Amino acid sequence: MDATEQSLRQSLSEKSSSVESQGNAVRALKASRAAKPEIDAAIDLLNKLKLEKSTVEKQLQSIITSSGNGSLNREAFRQAVVNTLERRLFYIPAFKIYRGVAGLFDYGPPGCAVKSNVLSFWRQHFILEENMLEVDCPCVTPEVVLKASGHVDKFTDLMVKDEKTGTCYRADHLLKDYCTDKVEKDLTISAEKAAEFKDVLAVMEDYSPEELGAKLKEYGITAPDTKNPLSDPYPFNLMFQTSIGPSGLIPGYMRPETAQGIFVNFKDLYYYNGRKLPFAAAQIGQAFRNEISPRQGLLRVREFTLAEIEHFVDPENKSHPKFPDVSKLEFLMFPREEQMSGQSAKKLCIGEAVAKGTVNNETLGYFIGRVYLFLTRLGIDKERLRFRQHLANEMAHYAADCWDAEIESSYGWIECVGIADRSAYDLRAHSEKSGVALVAEEKYAEPKEVEKLVINPVKKELGLAFKGNQKNVVESLEAMNEKEAMEMKASLESKGEVEFYVCTLEKNVIIKKNMVSISKEKKKEHQRVFTPSVIEPSFGIGRIIYCLYEHCFSTRPSKAGDEQLNVFRFPPLVAPIKCTVFPLVQNQQFEEATKVISKELTSVGISHKIDITGTSIGKRYARTDELGVPFAITVDSDTSVTIRERDSKDQVRVSLEEAASVVSSVAEGKMTWQDVWARFPHHSSATADE
Amino acid sequence: MDATEQSLRQSLSEKSSSVESQGNAVRALKASRAAKPEIDAAIDLLNKLKLEKSTVEKQLQSIITSSGNGSLNREAFRQAVVNTLERRLFYIPAFKIYRGVAGLFDYGPPGCAVKSNVLSFWRQHFILEENMLEVDCPCVTPEVVLKASGHVDKFTDLMVKDEKTGTCYRADHLLKDYCTDKVEKDLTISAEKAAEFKDVLAVMEDYSPEELGAKLKEYGITAPDTKNPLSDPYPFNLMFQTSIGPSGLIPGYMRPETAQGIFVNFKDLYYYNGRKLPFAAAQIGQAFRNEISPRQGLLRVREFTLAEIEHFVDPENKSHPKFPDVSKLEFLMFPREEQMSGQSAKKLCIGEAVAKGTVNNETLGYFIGRVYLFLTRLGIDKERLRFRQHLANEMAHYAADCWDAEIESSYGWIECVGIADRSAYDLRAHSEKSGVALVAEEKYAEPKEVEKLVINPVKKELGLAFKGNQKNVVESLEAMNEKEAMEMKASLESKGEVEFYVCTLEKNVIIKKNMVSISKEKKKEHQRVFTPSVIEPSFGIGRIIYCLYEHCFSTRPSKAGDEQLNVFRFPPLVAPIKCTVFPLVQNQQFEEATKVISKELTSVGISHKIDITGTSIGKRYARTDELGVPFAITVDSDTSVTIRERDSKDQVRVSLEEAASVVSSVAEGKMTWQDVWARFPHHSSATADE
Repeated sequence: MDATEQSLRQSLSEKSSSVESQGNAVRALKASRAAKPEIDAAIDLLNKLKLEKSTVEKQLQSIITSSGNGSLNREAFRQAVVNTLERRLFYIPAFKIYRGVAGLFDYGPPGCAVKSNVLSFWRQHFILEENMLEVDCPCVTPEVVLKASGHVDKFTDLMVKDEKTGTCYRADHLLKDYCTDKVEKDLTISAEKAAEFKDVLAVMEDYSPEELGAKLKEYGITAPDTKNPLSDPYPFNLMFQTSIGPSGLIPGYMRPETAQGIFVNFKDLYYYNGRKLPFAAAQIGQAFRNEISPRQGLLRVREFTLAEIEHFVDPENKSHPKFPDVSKLEFLMFPREEQMSGQSAKKLCIGEAVAKGTVNNETLGYFIGRVYLFLTRLGIDKERLRFRQHLANEMAHYAADCWDAEIESSYGWIECVGIADRSAYDLRAHSEKSGVALVAEEKYAEPKEVEKLVINPVKKELGLAFKGNQKNVVESLEAMNEKEAMEMKASLESKGEVEFYVCTLEKNVIIKKNMVSISKEKKKEHQRVFTPSVIEPSFGIGRIIYCLYEHCFSTRPSKAGDEQLNVFRFPPLVAPIKCTVFPLVQNQQFEEATKVISKELTSVGISHKIDITGTSIGKRYARTDELGVPFAITVDSDTSVTIRERDSKDQVRVSLEEAASVVSSVAEGKMTWQDVWARFPHHSSATADE
Repeated sequence: MDATEQSLRQSLSEKSSSVESQGNAVRALKASRAAKPEIDAAIDLLNKLKLEKSTVEKQLQSIITSSGNGSLNREAFRQAVVNTLERRLFYIPAFKIYRGVAGLFDYGPPGCAVKSNVLSFWRQHFILEENMLEVDCPCVTPEVVLKASGHVDKFTDLMVKDEKTGTCYRADHLLKDYCTDKVEKDLTISAEKAAEFKDVLAVMEDYSPEELGAKLKEYGITAPDTKNPLSDPYPFNLMFQTSIGPSGLIPGYMRPETAQGIFVNFKDLYYYNGRKLPFAAAQIGQAFRNEISPRQGLLRVREFTLAEIEHFVDPENKSHPKFPDVSKLEFLMFPREEQMSGQSAKKLCIGEAVAKGTVNNETLGYFIGRVYLFLTRLGIDKERLRFRQHLANEMAHYAADCWDAEIESSYGWIECVGIADRSAYDLRAHSEKSGVALVAEEKYAEPKEVEKLVINPVKKELGLAFKGNQKNVVESLEAMNEKEAMEMKASLESKGEVEFYVCTLEKNVIIKKNMVSISKEKKKEHQRVFTPSVIEPSFGIGRIIYCLYEHCFSTRPSKAGDEQLNVFRFPPLVAPIKCTVFPLVQNQQFEEATKVISKELTSVGISHKIDITGTSIGKRYARTDELGVPFAITVDSDTSVTIRERDSKDQVRVSLEEAASVVSSVAEGKMTWQDVWARFPHHSSATADE
């Protein structure tokens, strides 16, 4: 224990006792029917003290867990979290009795409850509050859909094989590990060499298979397990492939994302929405990626739950009516320029970031704000959450702007939500492949006069001149943009003929004045037809949950001081169980009282668990803390009970009848624990053996 | 319209008007501050009238939809339901813009909301109320797991191929269609022939591939599309196959059910539950079956949501502590004997069915009762729901008993929930394959003295006698059961030697007295170790939802009588949206009031939609009825609004402030519409153009 920790612990102990004495004072004031202002002042003081106590606790926690001693501490911390998670069945390596499969995990009972709470809140926060259209599409997807989206051709990682054993590795992982090791652990290398490795780490994402292969060869990198030589890198498609129907003739894949199911339904959804833009569709469901060699535990898995939103918007108007609701929010942002110039993330106001153009448009900014609110309400620490803008080389060519919500964990900063303005790319791709127009219309209040380019190839003349190639020439002429066409018109008028490159013939031809007429005509248009842009917030639910586990985990010494007890400080919103009920000892009387409370908790919709094991209350509290249960009711009489709050370990005494409603009020945020603490007599834990 | 329908419609119209006048009377009484008994009597009468009205409506509905004119009516009804479902995006053929894939469907916004409501209620009714352990396992499953469960070898349908085009068909479907057609439509066949076809239909499920092939040949059945000859039937595995990881060496499948994920976790779950039986685990998730040729729309699909419960219980004690909660329930049951003797399903009391042994045990009976409550609360018509016991030939050899909840739809009686006592089969299969003991223990309060058979082969003597075959002989000796061993012991003692069949050698050998010692020893045992039985209720969520659509669908004439309007009479519990809000006309004042109501509805958690289109209120009501929205608030002033109930079309006037809380009380079942009708002034729809 270092000096800072020592002094923080001392301060914490002092603060705890002043909180307790102030709490008693408040109770005494209430009992003596003192004037309201006096009680209010005392409550204010109490709340301030509690806040200070919680700040000190946080500092202490941050010293114990994440900061300071680097990767060793981080790994010890992670191990403590993961051990607790596995022991209490938050998750289980899938098919464990058959020695498991890398990258596949089960959620056990508390993990399931957390996931279900996170998804309920997601549905509430996004779908219901924003009136989104929810859809639910199959995981099995025919090839044509993923061909159009680009996944069949491009959803790959580069792989190398051990030339003797056939074991597969991700080529970039091997190069990354090699360079990182050199930079971090090899003290013999020169400054130039170190700079070179750092440079490789920075640019390797852009390497072609050939460049990556050359680097592996240059550094003499071999198979990590056997030291055997490696094959050249080649692309491996990350989709699980299957075959639909009995013929074996319809190839299919397990979807790598849920988004495509929304895009292919755009037309129906647009009509469902009364042909109005903007609107958003959303989907929660399983997605699959056949990772080459999954690492990082729950963060890189082969099957996971995605929650995706596709917000369709007029590309000429990306404002958002509810932007003022979030525009004042401030949080850590990491724009492209700051990354390039080696600075770190800093607090920005999202309203200003949009106004200055750092964030491309209001709708993108609105979703960034909403994602911030979503994650922090779940319990993600706002100091360990940042929004990082994609660098130019990370972003698809069609994307207008892209920000990732990254959460800091023991593995470093982890991308948990991507928020991208994908422009019209996806809808256009499916329009082209399917032949179904995925477009929106804007009806003009009054017809508009527009100037339209009209290109009329004269087929008879072109046929005479180009015979079998006529079609190619016609198509090339029709495909000219306004600038090209007007230049040709000018040349034809001045010179009578012009050289013209026909790309499908890969050669120049001579176009004469009589072969084509080019003009601009004025037309009245009643509406504008366009492909909407799509803004896509995409949530990796499992990653968010894992980061939440790390952010909520802490340890504290047992009363005897002889061991460290684990606590998950989940907000009630996500806690797997909201309340446990303990009869102090096993007898008829307490059992009856326990039943009454249990029934009332069920009727107010509070998930709870009854622990009737004969072990000490202290042990039962410890067990409940490890599951992150925020409240515990101990039945020690048949008229009143105690309610204990997990983080402060404070206890109040409440009548049997009121117990369920008090817990439900705090769990649902209608009341704070401070309110409860001020309202009810405090119970000293002296009798309990905590 | 036939005479019965005519008279029912007449009666309905009369009853509607008496309900209305009685409602007005109640209101008048309340306004005049009459004595409470008078008001109560009036309310009683009103409720009775409402009940009668609803009975007549139901009779009318049943005439219009399901009964009477056989399959033609059924198909017309189905078409009406399906058209409405597709038009309002309850569901969408998946990948429609690419001309779809048979057996794959999307849920659109209202379908998603219904599904989410059904699953929430399932979680509440089963997992929370019964304290089940929920798990969430991957869909991608390695082969070893499904080899152990028997799916790799036995999860097949018999398939035939068109020998020229290669098109695949389910062999039993072709035979079934042929026989059904003959029986139902061919008037030329003899009585014997008809009896033969009926007999084939009854027994064809038991046919081997060869028998099925012989029948197809005998009847000259050809490919339905081309009349080409067919191949012999051969088994086609219904699992979607894939490959896990990049090597291509780990075969995997998309799970055909969620149950296996629970079985392989039995050991951890048993420990999590404090090593106590009984307990249940549950899982909701996607399952996949690569059907040969999906038919029956939403009922036979290639990907679907299952909700499965595995209730683990001591095979020696299948009682259930909560059985008295359901034992008085009465509903349609169809036991094995009634099916065999050609009777039909009849109303039985589940308590008696268990007492008489019709249902194998209390736990099975308890779940049958709980499933009945679940389905009827969702809105499944209890007259069109029956529990059918599996016939001996339908049931796996290891199953102790099995009942299907079947729901009647336009496709006939459809299996929607299976409730099976699978004995110890699944846990034993995985124990054997994995080598991990999946067992439970019962600790005895006091050690029990038990007599144990002890067989000690004398390896030295056996080695001398049998040399290389010694191992086979030893294993066979050790594998004797008690009876065999005691017979051998007697023979050896009387004759000194005995002939013994060693099955792995496929011959008899001579065992002499000095080669084996057989005895019974008394031992003290402190516990009993056993493999639990599992009782499995398995819910096809998509099938339940489709049947619910059919049961809730009805039509009624528009006010003008010129068209039939569609109504989904969903209970509020499952309705996709609980309430719509209509400003009567578009103006600032109504818009403000609408916002107030919308905000309050959101805060009490009532999903709602605002319809500000300028169309008539009548049209907006019709639109909302077609989505099954139970309540509509029309904003026609800035101090009070009307609330309209979907099924009765009754409207009451409520103050702006109360509107949201009234709707939420009725939607959540805290109040009935009758209560509302009695409490608030009635609003005549004369002004509205319904």
